[in-house]
Amino acid sequence: MKNFQFKNPTKILFGKGQIENLSKEIPENAKILLLYGGGSIKKNGIYDQVKKALSAYEVVEFGGIPANPEYSILLKALQVIKEDGINFLLAVGGGSVIDGTKFLSAAALYKGDSPWDLLTANKPTTEGMPFGTVLTLPATGSEMNSGAVITRKETKEKLAMGGPGLFPFFSILDPEVVKSIPQRQLANGITDAYTHVLEQYMTYPTGALLQDRFAESILQTLVEVAPAILKDPSDYAAASNFMWSCTMALNGLIQQGVPGDWAVHMMGHELTALYGIDHARTLAIVAPSHYRYNFDSKKEKLAQYAERIWNVVDGTVEEKAKAGIEKTEEFFHSLGIKTKLSEYTDDYSETGSIVSKRFTDRGWTGLGEHKTLSPSDAEKIVEMSY
Amino acid sequence: MKNFQFKNPTKILFGKGQIENLSKEIPENAKILLLYGGGSIKKNGIYDQVKKALSAYEVVEFGGIPANPEYSILLKALQVIKEDGINFLLAVGGGSVIDGTKFLSAAALYKGDSPWDLLTANKPTTEGMPFGTVLTLPATGSEMNSGAVITRKETKEKLAMGGPGLFPFFSILDPEVVKSIPQRQLANGITDAYTHVLEQYMTYPTGALLQDRFAESILQTLVEVAPAILKDPSDYAAASNFMWSCTMALNGLIQQGVPGDWAVHMMGHELTALYGIDHARTLAIVAPSHYRYNFDSKKEKLAQYAERIWNVVDGTVEEKAKAGIEKTEEFFHSLGIKTKLSEYTDDYSETGSIVSKRFTDRGWTGLGEHKTLSPSDAEKIVEMSY
Repeated sequence: MKNFQFKNPTKILFGKGQIENLSKEIPENAKILLLYGGGSIKKNGIYDQVKKALSAYEVVEFGGIPANPEYSILLKALQVIKEDGINFLLAVGGGSVIDGTKFLSAAALYKGDSPWDLLTANKPTTEGMPFGTVLTLPATGSEMNSGAVITRKETKEKLAMGGPGLFPFFSILDPEVVKSIPQRQLANGITDAYTHVLEQYMTYPTGALLQDRFAESILQTLVEVAPAILKDPSDYAAASNFMWSCTMALNGLIQQGVPGDWAVHMMGHELTALYGIDHARTLAIVAPSHYRYNFDSKKEKLAQYAERIWNVVDGTVEEKAKAGIEKTEEFFHSLGIKTKLSEYTDDYSETGSIVSKRFTDRGWTGLGEHKTLSPSDAEKIVEMSY
Repeated sequence: MKNFQFKNPTKILFGKGQIENLSKEIPENAKILLLYGGGSIKKNGIYDQVKKALSAYEVVEFGGIPANPEYSILLKALQVIKEDGINFLLAVGGGSVIDGTKFLSAAALYKGDSPWDLLTANKPTTEGMPFGTVLTLPATGSEMNSGAVITRKETKEKLAMGGPGLFPFFSILDPEVVKSIPQRQLANGITDAYTHVLEQYMTYPTGALLQDRFAESILQTLVEVAPAILKDPSDYAAASNFMWSCTMALNGLIQQGVPGDWAVHMMGHELTALYGIDHARTLAIVAPSHYRYNFDSKKEKLAQYAERIWNVVDGTVEEKAKAGIEKTEEFFHSLGIKTKLSEYTDDYSETGSIVSKRFTDRGWTGLGEHKTLSPSDAEKIVEMSY
C-alpha cells in the first residue's frame, strides 16, 4: 500500500425528504446564487422543494448551465456573483452543474488575470466561496469530491481543476430524484460510476487488499442494481444503492494508497470535445481498447476483476483477464451503451491522430498508472475503438 | 436503506514516515499537551520521532493513561490543561489514550459542574479543544471517529460519550508501529475491529447492498491478513491492511443507512468493568452467545455472512447461519482468543444477574437493533457465555 493523505469534509444528507433540511446547512446571512441546468428541476418538483426550503434567504437564480459546463456561460454567472454580492452558491443538478459551481467557487475568490488560469495552471485550489449541492443525477461523484471538469467550446477544450478548497460544504442526496431521470442518463450514470471505479482499480496489484475489495463492492453493487434501475427507476431500494455507489465511486476513498490510471478519461474527454458524445459513453468506447492495448501490465487486476465481479473462475490469468474485458463490454451493452466510436459518428477516421496531436500540443507524454502512455499510444488505443 | 447524515472531517496521514509531517498539521501558536499511556512509545521509538517533529512547539507531557482510560487520572490531566494554558492536545497511543484525549477535549471547554456529566448526560458534544492523534495500536477506530469510552474505577462504570465536536483534526497512521506490538494486543486489535464490523452488520437485511459489501470487505481483509500479522508483525503489507481495516471498521462509513446492534459492546463493557478482561476479549465472549440467543432475528444476515466471508454455500438459511456463528468462534480461537467467560475468571456464576441488575439500574431496557433486548435477555446471553 502506498502512503496517502485523505480528508473529505463534505457532509452528506442522504434519503427521502432531506431537501427540507437545506436551511439548517446554510449560514443565516447567506446571499445565495442558485445554479441549475436546463430546467428539468422545474418539471420534477426539485426546484419547488428547494425554493420552499430557502424561503428565509435572499436567492438569485442562474439557470441554463449545459452538460459539459461551458466556460463562457459560467463567466456570466461569475458576473452575477460579483454584481449581486453573492456569498454562498447552491448547485441543484448533476455533475455538470456541480462542476460549474466548483469553478465559480474558485473563480469568485481568484485574484489573477483570467479565471481560465484555474484550468491551465495545474495548481490545486485551496480556497473557494462556500457552496452546497442538491444532487439530481447520480453519476459523476462531484457531490462529494473537490474536482471539476470545464469545457470551452471556443477552443474545443475540456480541462480539469480542483483542490482541497473545493469540497461541497454539504450535499443532499435524495434517491427519489432517480425516478424522473430519463433512461439515457440513467445508463450514462451507471457507466460513469462504473468506469470511475475501473480507473482507480484496473492497474496493477499493490497489496492494497481493502481498497481492492471496496472498489469491487461498488462494481458488484452497480452490476446488481443496474437492471432494476433501468426497468423501474422508482424502485427506491435500487435507486438508493445506485446513488450511494456513484458517490462512493469518486469521493477519494478507493483511490487512497493505490495507483490511478485515468487515461480512459483523458481520451474520453477528447471525444466529447470533438463530437459532443456523452461523457459516460466516451468512457465505454475507450476503456475496452485501453485494457486490450495495455493487457500485459493490467492482466493481474483484470483477472482478479473477472473472478470477483463476474465469477470467471476457470482458465489462466490471461484467459480470465480477457474474459474480464469481454464481460465489461457486455455489461455496457446490457445498459444500451454502444462501445465503438463508429456507432456514434461517421467522422472517425482521423480521430486517433487528432487526439494524439492534441495530447502532444498540451505536452501530455506520460499518461496512465505507469506514466508511460505517449500520445502515439493514445492514437493507437483510439484507433482500436473505431 | 435508511436515511442518514454523514460527515467525517478527520484528516488521515497514512504510511511510513508520516510522523515527520506532524508540525504541518498543528497551528503555529499551539501549546501542546502530549498524552500517552504506559510508556511503550519510549521503547519503540515513536516518542522520539514525535518529540523531534514537535521541536518548534511548547510541549507539556502527560503519560500514564491506562487501558480503559480512568476518569480520576484524566482529571489530573485536565488540571494540567487549565493550569498550563494548553490549547492543543496530541494523543500518542492506542484507543485508550485517544478516548481519554477526547474526554479531555470536551472537558476542557465544558462549562457545567462536573465533567462526569459528559458521560451521563447522553448529549452529543458539539465543541472540543482541537486535538490530533498518532496511532500506535490499530484496534478501536477512535482515530477517525468522534466517540470515546471512559472508565471510572470508583463506581466500576464504563460509559460512552461523543459528538460532532470530537473528531480528531488529524490522525497519523504509520503501519510500521505494528511490528512492536505484543501478540496479545495484535490479537485483541483484530478481534476488536472484526466485532465493530459485526455490530453494524449482523442485524437484519435492509437492502443496503453497498454498506453490506463494504462491511464484508473489512471482515474478509481482516481474515486474510490475521495469520500474517500474528506470524510476522513486521510484514508491512499485512500491517497496513490491518491498520486501515481497523480505522474503516468504525469511522462511521459502514453504519450509514443501516441498523446498528451494539448490545455485544454494552455487555462486554460490563465484563471489563467487573473483571478487567481485555475489551476485545469480552466481545469475543459475548458475541457468539448473543447471535445464538437472537438467532431468529439475525439468521438472514448470519447466513449471508457465512456465505460471503466463509464460503459456506450449502444448506438452509438456518444451517448456514449456524455455521457462521461457529466460523466466528473458530476465527477468534485461531487468534488465540478464548470465547468463554469461565476461561477468564472463576468468579462467573452470578455475572448474568449482576449485568442484568446494572442495566436495570441504568434504565437500559431496549438494547440491540430492534431496541427490544431487556436486562433479563442480557442476563441469559451472559449466562450462555459462561
